[in-house]
Amino acid sequence: MRHFIIDCDTAEDDIMSLFMLLRNNIDVQGITIVEGNISYEQEINNALWSLEFVGKDIPVYPGSDRPLVKQFRSVPEVHGKGGIGDEVVKPSKLKPQNKKAVDAIVEIADRYAGELEFLAISPLTNLALAYLKDKSVVEKIKKVWIMGGTVWGRGNITPVAEYNIWVDPDSAKIVFNSGFDITMVPWDVIVNYPITDEEWEQIKTMKTKMAQFYVKIYTHYRKYSMEKEKIKGTPHPDLITTSVALNRNVVLKSERQYVDIENCDCLTRGMTVIDYLGIWGKEPNAEIIYEINKKEFYSMLIDLLNWF
Amino acid sequence: MRHFIIDCDTAEDDIMSLFMLLRNNIDVQGITIVEGNISYEQEINNALWSLEFVGKDIPVYPGSDRPLVKQFRSVPEVHGKGGIGDEVVKPSKLKPQNKKAVDAIVEIADRYAGELEFLAISPLTNLALAYLKDKSVVEKIKKVWIMGGTVWGRGNITPVAEYNIWVDPDSAKIVFNSGFDITMVPWDVIVNYPITDEEWEQIKTMKTKMAQFYVKIYTHYRKYSMEKEKIKGTPHPDLITTSVALNRNVVLKSERQYVDIENCDCLTRGMTVIDYLGIWGKEPNAEIIYEINKKEFYSMLIDLLNWF
Amino acid sequence: MRHFIIDCDTAEDDIMSLFMLLRNNIDVQGITIVEGNISYEQEINNALWSLEFVGKDIPVYPGSDRPLVKQFRSVPEVHGKGGIGDEVVKPSKLKPQNKKAVDAIVEIADRYAGELEFLAISPLTNLALAYLKDKSVVEKIKKVWIMGGTVWGRGNITPVAEYNIWVDPDSAKIVFNSGFDITMVPWDVIVNYPITDEEWEQIKTMKTKMAQFYVKIYTHYRKYSMEKEKIKGTPHPDLITTSVALNRNVVLKSERQYVDIENCDCLTRGMTVIDYLGIWGKEPNAEIIYEINKKEFYSMLIDLLNWF
Amino acid sequence: MRHFIIDCDTAEDDIMSLFMLLRNNIDVQGITIVEGNISYEQEINNALWSLEFVGKDIPVYPGSDRPLVKQFRSVPEVHGKGGIGDEVVKPSKLKPQNKKAVDAIVEIADRYAGELEFLAISPLTNLALAYLKDKSVVEKIKKVWIMGGTVWGRGNITPVAEYNIWVDPDSAKIVFNSGFDITMVPWDVIVNYPITDEEWEQIKTMKTKMAQFYVKIYTHYRKYSMEKEKIKGTPHPDLITTSVALNRNVVLKSERQYVDIENCDCLTRGMTVIDYLGIWGKEPNAEIIYEINKKEFYSMLIDLLNWF
Repeated sequence: MRHFIIDCDTAEDDIMSLFMLLRNNIDVQGITIVEGNISYEQEINNALWSLEFVGKDIPVYPGSDRPLVKQFRSVPEVHGKGGIGDEVVKPSKLKPQNKKAVDAIVEIADRYAGELEFLAISPLTNLALAYLKDKSVVEKIKKVWIMGGTVWGRGNITPVAEYNIWVDPDSAKIVFNSGFDITMVPWDVIVNYPITDEEWEQIKTMKTKMAQFYVKIYTHYRKYSMEKEKIKGTPHPDLITTSVALNRNVVLKSERQYVDIENCDCLTRGMTVIDYLGIWGKEPNAEIIYEINKKEFYSMLIDLLNWF
Repeated sequence: MRHFIIDCDTAEDDIMSLFMLLRNNIDVQGITIVEGNISYEQEINNALWSLEFVGKDIPVYPGSDRPLVKQFRSVPEVHGKGGIGDEVVKPSKLKPQNKKAVDAIVEIADRYAGELEFLAISPLTNLALAYLKDKSVVEKIKKVWIMGGTVWGRGNITPVAEYNIWVDPDSAKIVFNSGFDITMVPWDVIVNYPITDEEWEQIKTMKTKMAQFYVKIYTHYRKYSMEKEKIKGTPHPDLITTSVALNRNVVLKSERQYVDIENCDCLTRGMTVIDYLGIWGKEPNAEIIYEINKKEFYSMLIDLLNWF
Repeated sequence: MRHFIIDCDTAEDDIMSLFMLLRNNIDVQGITIVEGNISYEQEINNALWSLEFVGKDIPVYPGSDRPLVKQFRSVPEVHGKGGIGDEVVKPSKLKPQNKKAVDAIVEIADRYAGELEFLAISPLTNLALAYLKDKSVVEKIKKVWIMGGTVWGRGNITPVAEYNIWVDPDSAKIVFNSGFDITMVPWDVIVNYPITDEEWEQIKTMKTKMAQFYVKIYTHYRKYSMEKEKIKGTPHPDLITTSVALNRNVVLKSERQYVDIENCDCLTRGMTVIDYLGIWGKEPNAEIIYEINKKEFYSMLIDLLNWF
Repeated sequence: MRHFIIDCDTAEDDIMSLFMLLRNNIDVQGITIVEGNISYEQEINNALWSLEFVGKDIPVYPGSDRPLVKQFRSVPEVHGKGGIGDEVVKPSKLKPQNKKAVDAIVEIADRYAGELEFLAISPLTNLALAYLKDKSVVEKIKKVWIMGGTVWGRGNITPVAEYNIWVDPDSAKIVFNSGFDITMVPWDVIVNYPITDEEWEQIKTMKTKMAQFYVKIYTHYRKYSMEKEKIKGTPHPDLITTSVALNRNVVLKSERQYVDIENCDCLTRGMTVIDYLGIWGKEPNAEIIYEINKKEFYSMLIDLLNWF
């Protein structure tokens, strides 16, 4: 049994990522919340509300509500005010933990030393703070899966920067340069594998509660992505990253390379710099996913939508 | 009774600052250690070793051994390899706590909410991390006393930057912009009030153990300061800051102004920028000490040296 | 008849670019020299020496031997100490002009106002200085052809920056933001169209003086590019840019986009930032070449090699 | 006879500086105009208009109307829209030269090689451009007198930066690091020697045309300086610098130190960094004026006001 922490700035794609972990019998030790997509409070609410939807009671740990050092902004225009569109939901019973994410990460890493996996589909503030508090998490966390960055300089929040890394480039710099075993799934790879019109229509015909839930929470994001970012369907950055973590067959091509983060307050702030030629002479610090097996991912999605 | 945490990168002047607190019956709730002057391990050793010298057992909490984001360097050339000259000491019995400084600060702030004072004679990483973990420390910590920065752009580690702020400008930026009630004692004020040749010779004639201890641990620093920094005596940045915290009569002139920190990787990195004309239109966030009553400080020092 | 200034940091590919202009009956009004590939003096020597090879006496104007503001370095490891390999040549008779490039550009632009084309296969310092001296060059220079930058963040001098732009990002920022009619041929497009082994061998069998000259001056660069930059042949950044300027059929795909230059002293310094989504809402300021008709380029090269 | 170029962003203090040169029989070879205090066109107009006032026909060369690389802003709030208050004047007959400042500087430096002095009471763009065009001006210009910068980090346009340097920190960096023989008169020294209320009233009683002219053109600036910058009178940055250039007795204290310029886009952009301890180990590149003989300056001013 695999043990995970999932770190979320909880919008639609974070929710389905959590569900995919649960559907695949992952032991989710905690959900840590971090600043990002929408208002911090709603991110917590969304996490608790989705747990109620699938009838699970997994600890939700409030983490950082701001980047380490820099300013950031949320993107309600992308995910809707509620992160699942403009509807703003609340959990009916579940409550977040009093324990802070930084402490939870250190403790869980301790408990599952050498086994714990950290799925970061979010800015990296919580993991950076855990590392700054206790460096031993580097050894104790077996694997860090990161949705973030770009490999061909094609970003979303700026021309070259992807949102998760851009929100807290300082934390990203810390995480990428600290020795974690990282697999990174970049935005400009992800956009090549959207859920197409045809697939979307197929899903809409499904009768399961999960499929209907999926359609409902992704409608806003799909519309935004296709109209404003000219993507030919719904991108699934978090969910593809989750599927990569769960199923190696989802990966068609990857490379181990050295990645650094531009954390200056400059034009390219938040960009992931891939030293593809080894110019800097540093050891690779991440496996970077370049190609995805779309079919394999899609079948994992359909399996999830058939859960109930 | 006043309750303090003292945050140290423990060299000679940190040690005497701790002693001055104790001599003046301050309830020192903890000593938190942070990266800075010398090797991190020796900073912990020095703290424990000095506690043994005065026969007190106060908890020493290991904190951050690195700045939040940037690179730094220690300055053994200034304080000697051992921080009290080149001799490298070890405590005979005392040990540091397992609890991390970040947690200790949050917990003690909670316990003495509204009363706790934080004496930072060191880079500000520990306090920044405590704040990033739990923002309520801003309200709970009554007062933050900071040795750091410059007011006339006359630094020590770079032409314009003072060492403590330079080591971790990101943490300093967080601390100064978070709403703490700060009093800042700048380096280029401090250097105007060194212990002169005459005073030094006078102290050398004192027979107390403390006076002899003082002479021993400051000899290296005195020499360095006079030869390399052209100061006309031994500067006491930490100890003057401590005396300011303890005795308002030490302050001759101060102003409330807005202070920001240059945290770019640039020529002036780590400089404290004092908006003396109110150009930025921001509320003052610190009381800045401009003039010291040297006599008052000196009598506090002599009192301390007469302790035993 | 088209009137050109060609701006060179004269290595092998600059020389052949000049020759291609001449072979195609372009009126080359001047060759301006700028800091870059190799020592500035040798760049001038190379320009004069190549003119002697083709028996032409075109004015060579010495320009800037340094970037506007920042430091740079030459890359003799790429082109050889002499820029045509390690051999260091000298002209036998020709001499550079006394007039400076900045003045020559302003004057020639004046003389051929509305007709002049500027081929920059080099850092952009000379053109920026001409613009800073006299802004009317923007209207007078009909077209600026630039070899430089990247579109997918795959650089050569740093992981994301191409050499010409990196050498003087400040000048590049000025040129790109001044209203010139720019076509930009990026490095990471160029590398897709190298002269392959087969082509190289074919050229080696040619008996013309020009073909033999070509083989001789490119041997060092070819070797370096294939071994160190893992390119599958000889890249021709300058010559492809020249062919684009001369023959529209060489372009298979291009887009008009807004390009800005990262000129901070940071990790990504010198990167061309392509606002491919229009996030910044600025008007396109350059036509960017994305795909080349290799065949068309190759036939222009062969034509050139058959000159004599 | 001394030969000067005076470089102006022509407001009231620039005008009186020009007059002081003329009153003291300096051979003013040219007035070069640069972006700064007010609209560029009005700066030219002011220069020509003041020449008409004193009945001299000295060539006015239009220079750069923008900094090398960065953005800047004019400060009509300080000097009035017209630079001499809000009145906007025009010359009745004189016209600016067609020759650009950059060319004029190079040519005049050539003509008076080893003798020419450059009085820069303005951003340093013109001199930097002349240097970038022809490095030999470093040897040919005997002396550069600069009004600019701060020595104690007390600025006017930002908390730590003085306006002239801030407008074009890149040009300032070039000029200070190029080997010119520089004397720098800093803003935070200047403010210690304002024309006081008593002096102002005394001047107002003078009957000369020049004194009346002086009162008229300084009224706006005096008011602004006293109300907004809390200076106890009218500061005379340009005129004191001019008096320093003309009369060594005006200098009470100076030091030769290494000065560098913060040219990053950061909080402290445009600050002059004085390496007062020699931390960087560089040779001094400027004489910095720390104390002024106010009496001597004042008597030069009164002499000027008694011209006619």
